[in-house]
Amino acid sequence: MRVGLLTGGGDVPGLNAAIRAVVKHGEGQYGHSIIGFRNGWKGVVDGLSMPLTRQHIRNVLPVGGTLLGTARFHPHAGDGGIDQVLATLEAERIEALICIGGDGTLHAASKVAEAGVKIVAIPKTIDNDVWGTDQSIGFDTAVTIATDAIDRIHTTAESHNRVMVVEVMGRHAGWIAATAGIAGGAELVLAPEAPFDIDRIERFLKHRHRAHASFSIVVVAEGAVPAEGTSMHYETQVGKFGEIVAGAIGERLKAEIEQRTGFDTRVTVLGHVQRGGTPSPTDRILGSRFGVAAIDAITQGRSNVMTALRGERVELVPLSEVAGKVKHVPDELLSVARALA
Amino acid sequence: MRVGLLTGGGDVPGLNAAIRAVVKHGEGQYGHSIIGFRNGWKGVVDGLSMPLTRQHIRNVLPVGGTLLGTARFHPHAGDGGIDQVLATLEAERIEALICIGGDGTLHAASKVAEAGVKIVAIPKTIDNDVWGTDQSIGFDTAVTIATDAIDRIHTTAESHNRVMVVEVMGRHAGWIAATAGIAGGAELVLAPEAPFDIDRIERFLKHRHRAHASFSIVVVAEGAVPAEGTSMHYETQVGKFGEIVAGAIGERLKAEIEQRTGFDTRVTVLGHVQRGGTPSPTDRILGSRFGVAAIDAITQGRSNVMTALRGERVELVPLSEVAGKVKHVPDELLSVARALA
Amino acid sequence: MRVGLLTGGGDVPGLNAAIRAVVKHGEGQYGHSIIGFRNGWKGVVDGLSMPLTRQHIRNVLPVGGTLLGTARFHPHAGDGGIDQVLATLEAERIEALICIGGDGTLHAASKVAEAGVKIVAIPKTIDNDVWGTDQSIGFDTAVTIATDAIDRIHTTAESHNRVMVVEVMGRHAGWIAATAGIAGGAELVLAPEAPFDIDRIERFLKHRHRAHASFSIVVVAEGAVPAEGTSMHYETQVGKFGEIVAGAIGERLKAEIEQRTGFDTRVTVLGHVQRGGTPSPTDRILGSRFGVAAIDAITQGRSNVMTALRGERVELVPLSEVAGKVKHVPDELLSVARALA
Amino acid sequence: MRVGLLTGGGDVPGLNAAIRAVVKHGEGQYGHSIIGFRNGWKGVVDGLSMPLTRQHIRNVLPVGGTLLGTARFHPHAGDGGIDQVLATLEAERIEALICIGGDGTLHAASKVAEAGVKIVAIPKTIDNDVWGTDQSIGFDTAVTIATDAIDRIHTTAESHNRVMVVEVMGRHAGWIAATAGIAGGAELVLAPEAPFDIDRIERFLKHRHRAHASFSIVVVAEGAVPAEGTSMHYETQVGKFGEIVAGAIGERLKAEIEQRTGFDTRVTVLGHVQRGGTPSPTDRILGSRFGVAAIDAITQGRSNVMTALRGERVELVPLSEVAGKVKHVPDELLSVARALA
Repeated sequence: MRVGLLTGGGDVPGLNAAIRAVVKHGEGQYGHSIIGFRNGWKGVVDGLSMPLTRQHIRNVLPVGGTLLGTARFHPHAGDGGIDQVLATLEAERIEALICIGGDGTLHAASKVAEAGVKIVAIPKTIDNDVWGTDQSIGFDTAVTIATDAIDRIHTTAESHNRVMVVEVMGRHAGWIAATAGIAGGAELVLAPEAPFDIDRIERFLKHRHRAHASFSIVVVAEGAVPAEGTSMHYETQVGKFGEIVAGAIGERLKAEIEQRTGFDTRVTVLGHVQRGGTPSPTDRILGSRFGVAAIDAITQGRSNVMTALRGERVELVPLSEVAGKVKHVPDELLSVARALA
Repeated sequence: MRVGLLTGGGDVPGLNAAIRAVVKHGEGQYGHSIIGFRNGWKGVVDGLSMPLTRQHIRNVLPVGGTLLGTARFHPHAGDGGIDQVLATLEAERIEALICIGGDGTLHAASKVAEAGVKIVAIPKTIDNDVWGTDQSIGFDTAVTIATDAIDRIHTTAESHNRVMVVEVMGRHAGWIAATAGIAGGAELVLAPEAPFDIDRIERFLKHRHRAHASFSIVVVAEGAVPAEGTSMHYETQVGKFGEIVAGAIGERLKAEIEQRTGFDTRVTVLGHVQRGGTPSPTDRILGSRFGVAAIDAITQGRSNVMTALRGERVELVPLSEVAGKVKHVPDELLSVARALA
Repeated sequence: MRVGLLTGGGDVPGLNAAIRAVVKHGEGQYGHSIIGFRNGWKGVVDGLSMPLTRQHIRNVLPVGGTLLGTARFHPHAGDGGIDQVLATLEAERIEALICIGGDGTLHAASKVAEAGVKIVAIPKTIDNDVWGTDQSIGFDTAVTIATDAIDRIHTTAESHNRVMVVEVMGRHAGWIAATAGIAGGAELVLAPEAPFDIDRIERFLKHRHRAHASFSIVVVAEGAVPAEGTSMHYETQVGKFGEIVAGAIGERLKAEIEQRTGFDTRVTVLGHVQRGGTPSPTDRILGSRFGVAAIDAITQGRSNVMTALRGERVELVPLSEVAGKVKHVPDELLSVARALA
Repeated sequence: MRVGLLTGGGDVPGLNAAIRAVVKHGEGQYGHSIIGFRNGWKGVVDGLSMPLTRQHIRNVLPVGGTLLGTARFHPHAGDGGIDQVLATLEAERIEALICIGGDGTLHAASKVAEAGVKIVAIPKTIDNDVWGTDQSIGFDTAVTIATDAIDRIHTTAESHNRVMVVEVMGRHAGWIAATAGIAGGAELVLAPEAPFDIDRIERFLKHRHRAHASFSIVVVAEGAVPAEGTSMHYETQVGKFGEIVAGAIGERLKAEIEQRTGFDTRVTVLGHVQRGGTPSPTDRILGSRFGVAAIDAITQGRSNVMTALRGERVELVPLSEVAGKVKHVPDELLSVARALA
């Protein structure tokens, strides 16, 4: 079989592990030819392909990013993008396409699938908000990096009697904020799932610093917002690619806290470091398992499914069940963050 | 309520996160008194207790080991150990006991539960073989450490044309071997679940080195054994505490491979470094969630249950379902390791 | 002897190693009493002291920050601050004072020394710009953190065809920028020592991206400035404590580059993570050696000296030679950064 | 110019940084052709060469090992090896040769230099015992790895009341033992420079565990030996390549301590992990500076010199001054280790 492969959306650590697994297992076990497309859907539209062999995947397991490149680009039916996708896939005689991506890429994948292409999707996003899977590629590494940063900030906060605001990624869901907040021992975790009340934050910090503590760490997801009807007004600031402007909520929160409490308050915006560098073992394993499962699925004639982690098992879920949904942080996890403040 | 707490068996990273959660949540949310026992069941038998307050858990989240100390010690009914446990618990007016441990500790816990003590268990073991939970405290950190070691050994193997044997922990189950083997890109993973055939290993290595490769990495669990009826005879070597002798299988395998293939072969025994040091974010989170869940369970009157991770949720499973069983590595994971060799 | 000890200025990793060495060696070898002052010079003025014993330094070696706390505070003769320092030292019967700090703390130390107090200084600053010593406590950890961040940003830059601007600390000297820039393989390093020409940067980036490359990493010290007479005008922005406003030059440079080249450009401001967390082995060793050397110096009656690393040796240099000077990055190091762009 | 390049002896992290600098600076600044030889001197004898261009060095900066491969092989005049070296160099029209290696490689280099070849050497060894330079490539990474391991072992030692023996590399000099011992807070450091007295160790451990402590960490260099005339007899065990047998002294010491004190004693042999993996920033910078300096030296007509770090400067020292000498750990460093026990 000739199997196409692309990585779309923002890059995350662990993509190369998945690419490597697709190539090694596809070629080694079944003799498939793997055709990579550069820069996500853009490369399909532009016809930028490259055959992938064992040569290309040597030593890529511990390397972050994606050897195929990626882009935030989505083909739309309206502008003839989908037609161009189909044209390229036909010209390359692609029999099935493996798409590694987050909700944007998966949404495009479901459109292409509707046009008759056999697709197996692999979920990746450091936000961990893809529906249907316990975990997506890239999330665990991001949590590791964010926790490491909070650990570091902890010691400097303690030494100087400060409130430290740490802004992490998470547009629609606060997975990184909640998990790294728990792991780093943050005093407050602000996630999109639970809009915050700045008055309560003010009271909490004043009480805490009056009572006994000399510092506080506030972890805020970039997509966190104040609750309606509360005394802080703020709208999420969105950039030209639809991404949230880095630092916007962090800087604003710092200013609010400093003004309301008078405490020396600093902000750290983790930004791009969260999505780079050598993947954690968990992300390498997840990428490897998903890559092998995707090849097995294609070879067995399955299509329009996504590989998913469910407990200890890798399963296939229908792509149609996944698209358009956001997987939020469960209440239990947010409660643990609160309980340990 | 007066709630007892102990950590038993080998120490692992993440125990302090669980202790901290028990104390913070138990005291802060419900006003319970938490009484810690030193050195696992030994401290209960000896009556070595200490009240645990917020003072004791300051800054322990990123610290490995256990602030309570631990020991490999199991009270037996036969020698009056269980009676002594009951006597201490009564003297200390303990209404419920939280036991953090692996299968030895949990086995003792079920015996003590039979004698009428209310027990909530929390699973920890770097071997990850406790039945009923997707993950136990300590496993993720061990995998991280083992993967890091394999990454390091990779570069030196490549530079020198060698076969490198890496022995990792895993007595009855090869969880660390399989996962760190996949994450580190090992050529061979030998786990207790799948007894190996040294003749096949010999052929594989000779073929691989003749074909193209200049090095190979073999990850072996300490409990791996040759298949019956194959040409290598070996029995697992057990020390005085019932633990497997570190390096025994690793050294033996190195000798076999070197003699059969003539390739320069080296062995690295990871040993104790696998169970020490700052816990990974995953183990801190797992410890925190389990600690909170244990307190909630006790407060709700639940007993003789174990906290368990099931997919994204923390649940309670009956202790009786868990004891005496080993959770083996699923075939899918072993296949992925083989597929990516 | 009764020996005073304080840590002043910004906190850095490795301070606890120095404190530990002062206490262990002072008490263990010579029987000195070590009196710690909280929050730098502020604690001396306020009379906040605490006897330091082996209890206080247990397990602090791998812990960042300073167990004594620190503050940016300098006693001035004009406001009676120096008198108050002398009063506290007399009241506490301090015979000699060990001051761990950067140029602000050392400047104050030289003033206090002029008033007759026996002082031994230990240099710390992540900027590494203290004159007279090859290295100051905290620098090596900061370089390690900054390099790790650049490594991470590398993979995401490559995957997306971007210019990434990374702002690191370094007010008067570009030590972190130069070393982490070399270690991380940055294309451009902008340091205070060598004011930059934005037109040349523009030409370099356009040429590089036209020629072959798809991404560039620009590491800029917070104190970097454009050369006079060049086409970009910018003045370093200073905050209320005299510190440079984090992100100011980074954001400005991003805007300039994006506007001039049209390349997608992103900025990451490392900020506080550079000064936190577990110290690198080098900083723990440097802190340990300096602490031991300071106690030896005091016991031998030396005063008004600073411990200094010179090649492989720890030496004592007169405090008067050090104060008021900035140790700049040598040309050779800046050339290496340029040669490897 | 046509410049040859080889890496000899054991591999260490940071070699690729030096290779990259030689190629980038040699080609980019001066237009030299860089000819790499595979597997150290063996590749020169066998005529295994490869032109090195910018293609070969892409992304190698953070990668351990050496892209040229290496071998423990020394050409000897007696067996015609030197003649073969000269023949290859003439056939390849090599005008100058850069040799990256430890004392074995440098010794061979000085022999080849005597035969009229222009040589510039770059020191590398994780043992850090090359004379004439403050630091050699690979040492800093090894110390980082060893310290990390000691940190991990610390927590498990504390939890279990044990004596932990950690064997690190260091045949003739105890640099890793002394520095990682200080950084990791070891109770005892045993280095080849200071033969130990097992009776004193026994007394120290008994006293310490009786007095207050529940655990001890003993760091021993592989080349450490008992002092003559003391009650333990032991001779260093050497393997077929002249290397010290890993684990020999560690296992022996464990047995002695356990027998003499009765304390539960465990040994960890760090072995190959010490020389692999991504290089520390310090080793990347050192490799980069040495590579640039070697090219500059060759271009300026210098020969038979070695690049050396002296304080903050990179200098050139005559190769003849270096060969055959061992740089021992200075007394001050060993005293610091003892003072902080």
